[in-house]
Amino acid sequence: MSIKNKQDYLNSLKNQDIELYLFGEKVNDIINHPYIRPSINSAAMTYELAEKEEYRNLFIVESHLSGENINRFTHIHQSKEDLIKKVKMLRLLGQKTASCFQRCVGMDALNTLYSVTFEIDQEYRTDYHKRFLKFLDYVQQKNLMVDGAMTDPKGDRSLRPCEQKDPDMYLHIVKESSEGIIVRGAKAHQTGCVNSHEILVMPTLSLNEDEKDYAVSFAVPVITRGLIYIYGRQSSDTRRLEEGICGEIDRGNTYFGGQEVMVIFEDVFVPWERVFMCREYKYSTELVERFAGYHRQSYGGCKVGVGDVLIGAACLIAEYNGVEKASHIKDKIVEMINLNETIYSCGIACSFEGTRTPSGNYLVDLLLANVCKQNVTRFPYEISRIIQDIAGGKMVTLPSARDFKSPAVGSKLEKYLKGIESVPAENRIRILRFIENMTLGSGAVSYLTESMHGAGSPQAQRIMISRLTDLNYRKDLARQVAGIRDVKK
Amino acid sequence: MSIKNKQDYLNSLKNQDIELYLFGEKVNDIINHPYIRPSINSAAMTYELAEKEEYRNLFIVESHLSGENINRFTHIHQSKEDLIKKVKMLRLLGQKTASCFQRCVGMDALNTLYSVTFEIDQEYRTDYHKRFLKFLDYVQQKNLMVDGAMTDPKGDRSLRPCEQKDPDMYLHIVKESSEGIIVRGAKAHQTGCVNSHEILVMPTLSLNEDEKDYAVSFAVPVITRGLIYIYGRQSSDTRRLEEGICGEIDRGNTYFGGQEVMVIFEDVFVPWERVFMCREYKYSTELVERFAGYHRQSYGGCKVGVGDVLIGAACLIAEYNGVEKASHIKDKIVEMINLNETIYSCGIACSFEGTRTPSGNYLVDLLLANVCKQNVTRFPYEISRIIQDIAGGKMVTLPSARDFKSPAVGSKLEKYLKGIESVPAENRIRILRFIENMTLGSGAVSYLTESMHGAGSPQAQRIMISRLTDLNYRKDLARQVAGIRDVKK
Amino acid sequence: MSIKNKQDYLNSLKNQDIELYLFGEKVNDIINHPYIRPSINSAAMTYELAEKEEYRNLFIVESHLSGENINRFTHIHQSKEDLIKKVKMLRLLGQKTASCFQRCVGMDALNTLYSVTFEIDQEYRTDYHKRFLKFLDYVQQKNLMVDGAMTDPKGDRSLRPCEQKDPDMYLHIVKESSEGIIVRGAKAHQTGCVNSHEILVMPTLSLNEDEKDYAVSFAVPVITRGLIYIYGRQSSDTRRLEEGICGEIDRGNTYFGGQEVMVIFEDVFVPWERVFMCREYKYSTELVERFAGYHRQSYGGCKVGVGDVLIGAACLIAEYNGVEKASHIKDKIVEMINLNETIYSCGIACSFEGTRTPSGNYLVDLLLANVCKQNVTRFPYEISRIIQDIAGGKMVTLPSARDFKSPAVGSKLEKYLKGIESVPAENRIRILRFIENMTLGSGAVSYLTESMHGAGSPQAQRIMISRLTDLNYRKDLARQVAGIRDVKK
Amino acid sequence: MSIKNKQDYLNSLKNQDIELYLFGEKVNDIINHPYIRPSINSAAMTYELAEKEEYRNLFIVESHLSGENINRFTHIHQSKEDLIKKVKMLRLLGQKTASCFQRCVGMDALNTLYSVTFEIDQEYRTDYHKRFLKFLDYVQQKNLMVDGAMTDPKGDRSLRPCEQKDPDMYLHIVKESSEGIIVRGAKAHQTGCVNSHEILVMPTLSLNEDEKDYAVSFAVPVITRGLIYIYGRQSSDTRRLEEGICGEIDRGNTYFGGQEVMVIFEDVFVPWERVFMCREYKYSTELVERFAGYHRQSYGGCKVGVGDVLIGAACLIAEYNGVEKASHIKDKIVEMINLNETIYSCGIACSFEGTRTPSGNYLVDLLLANVCKQNVTRFPYEISRIIQDIAGGKMVTLPSARDFKSPAVGSKLEKYLKGIESVPAENRIRILRFIENMTLGSGAVSYLTESMHGAGSPQAQRIMISRLTDLNYRKDLARQVAGIRDVKK
Repeated sequence: MSIKNKQDYLNSLKNQDIELYLFGEKVNDIINHPYIRPSINSAAMTYELAEKEEYRNLFIVESHLSGENINRFTHIHQSKEDLIKKVKMLRLLGQKTASCFQRCVGMDALNTLYSVTFEIDQEYRTDYHKRFLKFLDYVQQKNLMVDGAMTDPKGDRSLRPCEQKDPDMYLHIVKESSEGIIVRGAKAHQTGCVNSHEILVMPTLSLNEDEKDYAVSFAVPVITRGLIYIYGRQSSDTRRLEEGICGEIDRGNTYFGGQEVMVIFEDVFVPWERVFMCREYKYSTELVERFAGYHRQSYGGCKVGVGDVLIGAACLIAEYNGVEKASHIKDKIVEMINLNETIYSCGIACSFEGTRTPSGNYLVDLLLANVCKQNVTRFPYEISRIIQDIAGGKMVTLPSARDFKSPAVGSKLEKYLKGIESVPAENRIRILRFIENMTLGSGAVSYLTESMHGAGSPQAQRIMISRLTDLNYRKDLARQVAGIRDVKK
Repeated sequence: MSIKNKQDYLNSLKNQDIELYLFGEKVNDIINHPYIRPSINSAAMTYELAEKEEYRNLFIVESHLSGENINRFTHIHQSKEDLIKKVKMLRLLGQKTASCFQRCVGMDALNTLYSVTFEIDQEYRTDYHKRFLKFLDYVQQKNLMVDGAMTDPKGDRSLRPCEQKDPDMYLHIVKESSEGIIVRGAKAHQTGCVNSHEILVMPTLSLNEDEKDYAVSFAVPVITRGLIYIYGRQSSDTRRLEEGICGEIDRGNTYFGGQEVMVIFEDVFVPWERVFMCREYKYSTELVERFAGYHRQSYGGCKVGVGDVLIGAACLIAEYNGVEKASHIKDKIVEMINLNETIYSCGIACSFEGTRTPSGNYLVDLLLANVCKQNVTRFPYEISRIIQDIAGGKMVTLPSARDFKSPAVGSKLEKYLKGIESVPAENRIRILRFIENMTLGSGAVSYLTESMHGAGSPQAQRIMISRLTDLNYRKDLARQVAGIRDVKK
Repeated sequence: MSIKNKQDYLNSLKNQDIELYLFGEKVNDIINHPYIRPSINSAAMTYELAEKEEYRNLFIVESHLSGENINRFTHIHQSKEDLIKKVKMLRLLGQKTASCFQRCVGMDALNTLYSVTFEIDQEYRTDYHKRFLKFLDYVQQKNLMVDGAMTDPKGDRSLRPCEQKDPDMYLHIVKESSEGIIVRGAKAHQTGCVNSHEILVMPTLSLNEDEKDYAVSFAVPVITRGLIYIYGRQSSDTRRLEEGICGEIDRGNTYFGGQEVMVIFEDVFVPWERVFMCREYKYSTELVERFAGYHRQSYGGCKVGVGDVLIGAACLIAEYNGVEKASHIKDKIVEMINLNETIYSCGIACSFEGTRTPSGNYLVDLLLANVCKQNVTRFPYEISRIIQDIAGGKMVTLPSARDFKSPAVGSKLEKYLKGIESVPAENRIRILRFIENMTLGSGAVSYLTESMHGAGSPQAQRIMISRLTDLNYRKDLARQVAGIRDVKK
Repeated sequence: MSIKNKQDYLNSLKNQDIELYLFGEKVNDIINHPYIRPSINSAAMTYELAEKEEYRNLFIVESHLSGENINRFTHIHQSKEDLIKKVKMLRLLGQKTASCFQRCVGMDALNTLYSVTFEIDQEYRTDYHKRFLKFLDYVQQKNLMVDGAMTDPKGDRSLRPCEQKDPDMYLHIVKESSEGIIVRGAKAHQTGCVNSHEILVMPTLSLNEDEKDYAVSFAVPVITRGLIYIYGRQSSDTRRLEEGICGEIDRGNTYFGGQEVMVIFEDVFVPWERVFMCREYKYSTELVERFAGYHRQSYGGCKVGVGDVLIGAACLIAEYNGVEKASHIKDKIVEMINLNETIYSCGIACSFEGTRTPSGNYLVDLLLANVCKQNVTRFPYEISRIIQDIAGGKMVTLPSARDFKSPAVGSKLEKYLKGIESVPAENRIRILRFIENMTLGSGAVSYLTESMHGAGSPQAQRIMISRLTDLNYRKDLARQVAGIRDVKK
């Protein structure tokens, strides 16, 4: 039965019986675990907002497979406009959650596999695309959340997969039969994995002929046997375990959060109908570059939305402190906007410059998508620095909410933590805790570190930028204006 | 007769009898004056490339007035796609000239007046729009080059126009009759003015009721009596006067250049049919903001094109020096590309997010256009710094081309100025002189200082960014995630 | 009895009976409280290293009062060399603790009061300096740790102290008698306060005549009645409460940390002999500027030391990941060093350019000290961004140490979290947790936010830089080279 | 006879009969050549200021050789204080000339050779130091200006000296006899060479055994036979040839300028007494690193002085424009100061941290000197960008002074180029021309490009910074705080 709304989504996770570890212990009830719930709330927003009439235009789209209305997170981009709407939808979700809502990796993986399976089939007369379409249709019909799993642990990064002492440092095929394949390895920092329904696995780098066994892509349900999940810690994570209103205040972001999980594949069986690439190593490059491209575009939406919340928070704390009219404060807020909208512009531009692939779906302009992400590895850090400047030192010296609510010192803190007269101290504390969360706490994991490494670390983008730019054309331009007739080499 | 190509354009300027001063003397033959010719060559490119089949798609467009094919520089944007194509056309022209080709101010002014005259008429039942359409049709039919004239001298910038000791520091109406108006004042740093055919004048700031006489917009032919032109100097300008191949080499940019002129209006008469705003001061804000918006978008195209040439020049000099494979050099080139494409992304994004005005034409997204220009006030400076790094010190210590070509020391310089074996010293000198021109010479006027102040200085954009951003919406976002129920003020 | 070593220091705190709240509850045993102990360990380093022969040169100095050897933290700077050695001592302590060791505020306050009390006496024939010398001698003899308390809560920052609705938003005199004064108010974010022995209070801004009651400086023992302490929370703070080796690993910085406390003065009595300024409001400016100057210099030492540890951590994780030889990694480490040593250069320069005050002690060059601190509000953020880049995404997705040490998944994590072969996964986890701590956790409070706001927020330095620079001299220089003979105004 | 003052210096150059080419022609009278004279005026300042009582403390110092008072430019640093005073002297000269005064290369070369010759002798029992002392004494007695010549043309930079097709791309010994040696090659971009008295040649890179012939250092008079000089062009250079007050105005910097020359050594004979290194290739590293160190320190003085003039110019133009009180303008000036004083701090710090060499003179701290220069490759560019922002667009669109002074349009320009009422238009033009000169013209060659490449390009400093930092010490610090007991490799 299809997931129609937030409640359906929560229900769908209730029976999610998986082997998940957190703080050394197995977790049984993931949706009611306070450590995990914020990330589920964020993901749930992708279902919740889709129900609202005002956002229908962004979230609901006609499937090119079934002709039915589906959630855009399961959609295959049919036009530039689809690419643009994706960016706008992600910005909106960033605005509403101020966190990572985890569902775009799946969308990006689906769109990547769509074109890559098509092209593999063209060359090798395989039937991956047909298999994939079946899987895709299932995802669209059920409105499932899909985890796109790419990053391997990598071990010693100076070595290729085959050179590693332990061959499992990159996920690979260990056995093949008429029913399917058996794979082993792990995928690191999987965002929103335990609250997804399916995992769509892809190789993490361009592979050579002798690395064929690593050239594998497939989908398995999250509840598949042999999958072991270990939850990642985040800065200030245990505030989620602090209860009641005090926990709510000190968390900063009251309801939402992200999630990173390591998934270990212990000889997991995948039936052939779920295998979408099997040793066609030549296509690993396309697969990696396209997924990276789509995902680098994503950051041009989601992080901008989070940036919007930070700009609002900067305005609020300035107001509460009584300095909103100071010229240097206003100027700093302009700078935050400028940086944020520059990222957005990159998100829009790489979408608009997108092109149709042979399979029919639309791919972002890879150069501009890499430029987009490269800026994302910098500007959120500066935005974060500026808001720390505006917030003032109290952000990191505030007593706990338990002190604030205590009979012993509560009233004293109400007195001394007040800013402008018209605003209660608690509001000021809340916005400061939010800024703390976003710049130092678990929100910073998503807004900063994920901006750095998600969809590939900065150097990965630089390599792509170099590769995707036609330098010979530019050299010719320079020769022309400088009047050089070169002795060509 | 319509201007069809470069030669027509040159011919059209032959009889341009204007009162132009340069180095204290009156210039008679502007098109053959070596100081002025490079700027004419740049402007001519807007005619020349339009003839080429490969660029037709960018340059030739159907007039919504006449239905005939016209040059895009005279076109009124009918769609987002028109806005996008404008940016791409400007990038191409930047690539081909590595300079300012001067014709976009007119295009931006035409599009501004198109919507503003329409709206003034709506409110005041005037007939400015009809007058303007007639002028527009004339410009389109003849394929004229129009100078958009906005910036007044401003005198003491802490004072409003009426507060200035000399009321002429801002151009204003001094007399009005049944035939038309008489205006006095000046317009500073007019780009490509003496090689235009028409000057389209606009006020330079938002005006109040007591500043009505300054709220004036009109068009006059460049050859109008009472107009006095004084040519501006640029860094390394007199190299244009150095003759032959030596001059060509030392200029750096062999054929192209920019032009800035001060135009003084000494009681110039304007007939009513050419008056497009006359004291409707309330619309001065719209007029200024829209023109600024269009023109800030323009920089997201033209400067990117110039940036492309610089990236090519950086690759060439690295190659000639033998260091093209050094990792730090490659990384610096990536950084140049990243900065350049970020500006381009802003140019694309503010175009794509453009909207239809009541008059029917399309206006860029003003927030993103301001963000675009704000980045242009920074990134070209960093690109320029990087290429100076890559070029090496020789860029500023090279002997003159006359030394290089002299019998006395020419062969010695050929020996000692050589880089890699396969490239003659002259090529290396040429590319270094080009980089010198672009970062320190007259090219830098256009690539750097104009990027700073053209279409408004940085602070002007910051004020607009602040004004155009909905901060209350963002405050609400922050309140929601932080759980704040604010006591509204 | 004088405190001779770390153990003496710990003993001295054992009987520290104060009213301290943490998480809404009163804390009884501060030195054994795991939340507080890391900050005590850091402060203890100022005693511990002083015992070591190799550091004696930095830590032990002859008192100009008694002629005896004292700890530099209680010393009055007698020369430029003393100022320089202070910077070097702080850098060393930063290297050894990677945190704030909290004792420099006291040293900076002592040096400030030394000269200011002298100058007040000169003008008003008071005897503050004599009182202060007695207090100073006591501190030197006992080798006490002194908290310098400056920052008031400030309430609505657009209002002066007297304009606040609640007059207590700035600490002030509420009563005066022959025995002494009674004060009320609070001091916010007091660094290392509950493990100090004395609190030395100063006003937080330049005061006017009608704000006389706020112009007050004095010292009271930490254990004084009427003082209420409320401990501030920090990012990831509760990891300190996680026990055993798992807690040790996940804390990142195994033993050390900072501390910020709000201190409320509930009608606290101060005997005259401990009052060092009482309504001489004119000297509030000198007092604030000098303390700020000394403390802005301090950051040119301590944060550089922390930066050194981060540079080392960057090298380690690069090595463990197998990428230490990648050119982009090496370049990023160079950038970290460059930024770090630039701060250090500012610390050295403002010390060397220090001058003798009328009282005989040495004051840093205030302009350069403000420049130093201004850079500290930026460069550590960039260093932090770079190390996050080098560290890779695992820094924020690592499972807990309890998972790593668990029978269930420990061995699997050992397998998949390994980097290069020769280094156990635990070492890699430890260095990643350290980097997490320094850039997102409680270490970031000290390394980033404190760098931003400690010793005054960025704008405070900018105001001082503007005020301390002789712009007229520079204008004259410009006039001379440009050949301007100005009509002087 | 010793040079005592500016006039003596000018006289000393009158008979300087050298083979100098400029614009393809031989120059006969260098001191009266308007193209060259500005650079001579700048260098003359090193004599002129030394006469003034107020600067005596910086300029006049006791020779450790003769005990007599000498000009510091010929002095061997005997203490840290000497190193500091050097920086202050250079800052002052930068303030007075706003250009490169060219004499520090010689001072830096003298101090380098002083210690290196001493150390070569220690190892090889040669007598270079004695020879050098004789030369040094001569320079001190006569108060000569010495050109330090290091940079070779280098040809293909991917090849070592011996690998170049043309062995002369690096200067080398071609013959040796009992009288001396004969050398061939060239030195590129020699600053202040034709108005020096002596050229002190050094190798430009670390050399290996098979490159012995390139390991040569010596001094020859500028008038030596076989030396050919070719003058380098600079941006806007020919404005120096424009005459009278118009030339003075349009030059921007009225009297001063820099100079870069290529010197070709056509089989030049050097007598043994003037040879200071001959094939002791092992010491080429020390020689290069020390010279670079001293010279990178120099930039921490001279460019700061130039920065001071630019700060003054920014204040003046803001005042003339009527915007001096705008908060964004004031903030930008603060930023200029902050950047400028940061460089100065690096200059001071690397001096103060200097150490005594075995020969007895003082060497700067090489790490900090490299950090100093690294910042110089960035901050002046940002200062230049900011002042272009403050100056406004008129800086690059101003008509020529000949227009301004012309009967035809002079009065019109006086009217329209005026800023605030109290200041004549000419003053505003002058300061704008000065800013143009410093950011785009010949002043920019010195303030920007020379800041980039002088004393080594940015990458050269980065390599040194990496080499000079003890990363193992820093790794140990990180291990300690993170609790890592490493398996040492």
